[in-house]
Amino acid sequence: MPTSLLLRGAFIGRFQPFHLGHLATVKYALRSVRELIIVIGSAQKSHEPRNPFTAGERIEMIRDSLQADKEISIDKILLIPVPDIEIHGLWTREVDLLVPRYEIIFTNDRFTRQLYLERGFKVKEPTMCRREELSATEVRARIAEGKEWKELVTFQTATIIEEIGGVERIRQLNNLGP
Amino acid sequence: MPTSLLLRGAFIGRFQPFHLGHLATVKYALRSVRELIIVIGSAQKSHEPRNPFTAGERIEMIRDSLQADKEISIDKILLIPVPDIEIHGLWTREVDLLVPRYEIIFTNDRFTRQLYLERGFKVKEPTMCRREELSATEVRARIAEGKEWKELVTFQTATIIEEIGGVERIRQLNNLGP
Amino acid sequence: MPTSLLLRGAFIGRFQPFHLGHLATVKYALRSVRELIIVIGSAQKSHEPRNPFTAGERIEMIRDSLQADKEISIDKILLIPVPDIEIHGLWTREVDLLVPRYEIIFTNDRFTRQLYLERGFKVKEPTMCRREELSATEVRARIAEGKEWKELVTFQTATIIEEIGGVERIRQLNNLGP
Amino acid sequence: MPTSLLLRGAFIGRFQPFHLGHLATVKYALRSVRELIIVIGSAQKSHEPRNPFTAGERIEMIRDSLQADKEISIDKILLIPVPDIEIHGLWTREVDLLVPRYEIIFTNDRFTRQLYLERGFKVKEPTMCRREELSATEVRARIAEGKEWKELVTFQTATIIEEIGGVERIRQLNNLGP
Amino acid sequence: MPTSLLLRGAFIGRFQPFHLGHLATVKYALRSVRELIIVIGSAQKSHEPRNPFTAGERIEMIRDSLQADKEISIDKILLIPVPDIEIHGLWTREVDLLVPRYEIIFTNDRFTRQLYLERGFKVKEPTMCRREELSATEVRARIAEGKEWKELVTFQTATIIEEIGGVERIRQLNNLGP
Amino acid sequence: MPTSLLLRGAFIGRFQPFHLGHLATVKYALRSVRELIIVIGSAQKSHEPRNPFTAGERIEMIRDSLQADKEISIDKILLIPVPDIEIHGLWTREVDLLVPRYEIIFTNDRFTRQLYLERGFKVKEPTMCRREELSATEVRARIAEGKEWKELVTFQTATIIEEIGGVERIRQLNNLGP
Repeated sequence: MPTSLLLRGAFIGRFQPFHLGHLATVKYALRSVRELIIVIGSAQKSHEPRNPFTAGERIEMIRDSLQADKEISIDKILLIPVPDIEIHGLWTREVDLLVPRYEIIFTNDRFTRQLYLERGFKVKEPTMCRREELSATEVRARIAEGKEWKELVTFQTATIIEEIGGVERIRQLNNLGP
Repeated sequence: MPTSLLLRGAFIGRFQPFHLGHLATVKYALRSVRELIIVIGSAQKSHEPRNPFTAGERIEMIRDSLQADKEISIDKILLIPVPDIEIHGLWTREVDLLVPRYEIIFTNDRFTRQLYLERGFKVKEPTMCRREELSATEVRARIAEGKEWKELVTFQTATIIEEIGGVERIRQLNNLGP
Repeated sequence: MPTSLLLRGAFIGRFQPFHLGHLATVKYALRSVRELIIVIGSAQKSHEPRNPFTAGERIEMIRDSLQADKEISIDKILLIPVPDIEIHGLWTREVDLLVPRYEIIFTNDRFTRQLYLERGFKVKEPTMCRREELSATEVRARIAEGKEWKELVTFQTATIIEEIGGVERIRQLNNLGP
Repeated sequence: MPTSLLLRGAFIGRFQPFHLGHLATVKYALRSVRELIIVIGSAQKSHEPRNPFTAGERIEMIRDSLQADKEISIDKILLIPVPDIEIHGLWTREVDLLVPRYEIIFTNDRFTRQLYLERGFKVKEPTMCRREELSATEVRARIAEGKEWKELVTFQTATIIEEIGGVERIRQLNNLGP
Repeated sequence: MPTSLLLRGAFIGRFQPFHLGHLATVKYALRSVRELIIVIGSAQKSHEPRNPFTAGERIEMIRDSLQADKEISIDKILLIPVPDIEIHGLWTREVDLLVPRYEIIFTNDRFTRQLYLERGFKVKEPTMCRREELSATEVRARIAEGKEWKELVTFQTATIIEEIGGVERIRQLNNLGP
Repeated sequence: MPTSLLLRGAFIGRFQPFHLGHLATVKYALRSVRELIIVIGSAQKSHEPRNPFTAGERIEMIRDSLQADKEISIDKILLIPVPDIEIHGLWTREVDLLVPRYEIIFTNDRFTRQLYLERGFKVKEPTMCRREELSATEVRARIAEGKEWKELVTFQTATIIEEIGGVERIRQLNNLGP
């Protein structure tokens, strides 16, 4: 059995909302680790234009999406919300305290990446296809502008966003409500 | 299919550490809910006599214990750390934001129980057998005093406590180190 | 006696500073509620370009203005400062804990409005006359630029701003001091 | 007109709950000041044995009690909740920012008193009659133990405590519930 | 001996990083005070484009620079980090609690200056030569863009920035890494 | 030159107040390190029975004491206040960010000691002579009870405590004032 399969990895993001690019990263990560912790960052934020969804809502989106995906075994996944910390330089140390031990990082966030690199961690930054489209910024913008956005997310993410009134919420927070 | 099986429940505690009484509650809860969120309270605390373990360590203890138990299906469990909140009366509202939606509460904590009751929630307080022994307070006391403590916890909890130097840590924090 | 007169309402804003548009909203609100709580939001902020005045100063402006107005009975008014909360989605829950019970909301803030709507609250957003002029942003801009600003606020607000050196403060904070 | 009547005073306490001793202090204070700010300290606390009531509930108790008292003119009273501050030595400075300007302090709290004395403030500590009985500690203890407590508080305080289920709450928080 | 030499002064800045303009201010200040407290503001911030260095790193830069300068006697200098405070208007009061007593302020920050002026403090704002170049903003911009930056700082600051990988850090945080 | 002389050490305590035992530890530490950082812990606390003095006052006591001691060269000392951190397990990481790099720890605090030991740090716990007497707890108790306390502290500490009204403050906070 290859050593790499014994590792636990951490995929760190804000997932506002969880989209197909995130899903691809989960699958990519699961090829090299035994268990994957999905760290939901800025967990204390919600109801803002840049952070419309609560951590609980984001966990529901991710969990439902992964459970429905046949390529993914949900029992290899941990979903853990982590709030921002006032002392910025301690961000990755806070993650250490709130999640099980891990050996490798997956993230696109420059700040997080830099902090882990200074600690000597291995950080993987997956090159994503359709990068411009497949971003949470793009998903939120399309929702705000009333454009087609469901093709960028999983069916489960779309369902939860509608269930919780997420389209209306994003439009209201952007001052575009009726 | 009985309606009750569609519910999601939340089991709220500090799990300092996770012991056989907690395990019994998890099994009891899983008889009436489809999914169980285990809320690790006071998540920001560790390295204190009353709160020796980090949230990450507590998650490892619980996850390993449940994964090894044949009666429990780990994919029905979510493990979510929630820090204390400065405005005490908002504690259960903070839980709402950080975890998926839930309908029923399991807890022995009086403060948590009271807040949920005032909101009209259904709160179950399981009557545990061997209650005096099966408490985290008792486990910590026995570790501090060098008494036999492993019979009160799962094999997995005991293993992790030893792996992370937990016995030594508790003794040091209680000013009983060598 | 009409039922509506038994209600308590909450008028939520930052009041940086209190102006004639706010005064009109107070009068409008008092037509439909028995008591009105004026919630002074972002109470912890002051001495910033967007938030020049302390909560205490804002309370003085509002109280003096309302006491001097013959149409308003000051004993129907409560003035309560509420600081921002780190977990954004709990903002309206924090208001619940810090003020007496209320049944209806008056606010122009989109974030606050959205949170209350999701809770099923009745939210009134008064259409104000002279909306572009009658904004706190406009008042601060005119003070900073040395333009005529007193016509936008009550006599009492103007008096307190001058008493506390508010004109000088705003100019300094905007880097326009002598 | 005597100069003293021009002053604004601040009466600082926790009011857990508001009792007849507090009421006597309000009347005593109103003899020497024009307006009285009642500062509700530890405003962020509630649902604890020592701090059972929210700031909003405490404001209701005080406001209803004072409005019903013929000796007191409610329009001379401001009720302002102030949360504790992490940097303890800044407590009275926080009060300065959140309430209108004041010149004299009424308090029985040693910590608050000391901080104001070091700033050169005038602090009055009213000698209360029936001091042992007329304390919030005594009221809470009697409620917890099921003894007669209503004679220590105003009719309005008693009414609100019953309306919000305060007796039950205190008993539950003290682990004395049914 | 002139009275002014008995004073203690406070030089308040963020020092991101410490540059030749700051050094000139230290020398200028030491001409009028007996001891100088260098207050490192926003001490909790680091690893951000505008605040790349930790307080500890900034203290090292300043201390090494001053120790190497023959005109400066290091035993007249105190270096004290002070984090931002949530209640903005208490910023200078927080400084009061965390540093020894002082009588005069040196700062270019408008917010800090305004707060001290309102307290009646004497605030000196040194007119610096080469002001446009000699700013921390300029130093960070040059580092990010790969331009010559060492001429704007002391030899010691440059050495520490290189030792801790500061050039790489700034480039990464600005999304300009390799 | 022995290698040990190149090290920087950190002496971590609360110094409420600084006494002769602390002074002995400073001298002991300076025998093995080139520079010594004195970390003033719980920097945000003051005006409490257990923490009567502000960080600024404690810095004055220590600085004056060390400057007057012929065996100590003040330019080898850094005095840095560090507030407590909400996430307890990050306490030593917070120290890392706020002070220059260090290699060895001197402390009597069990919590701090345990956290550093888990990180693999070298921690020295000096065995003090007259340990029961030479404790800050003893100094505060003697001041509160009006007993002879000056023999336990330096002349400079005693002077500052008297200058700032510290005897009176401690007595008031312990409810023993006149």
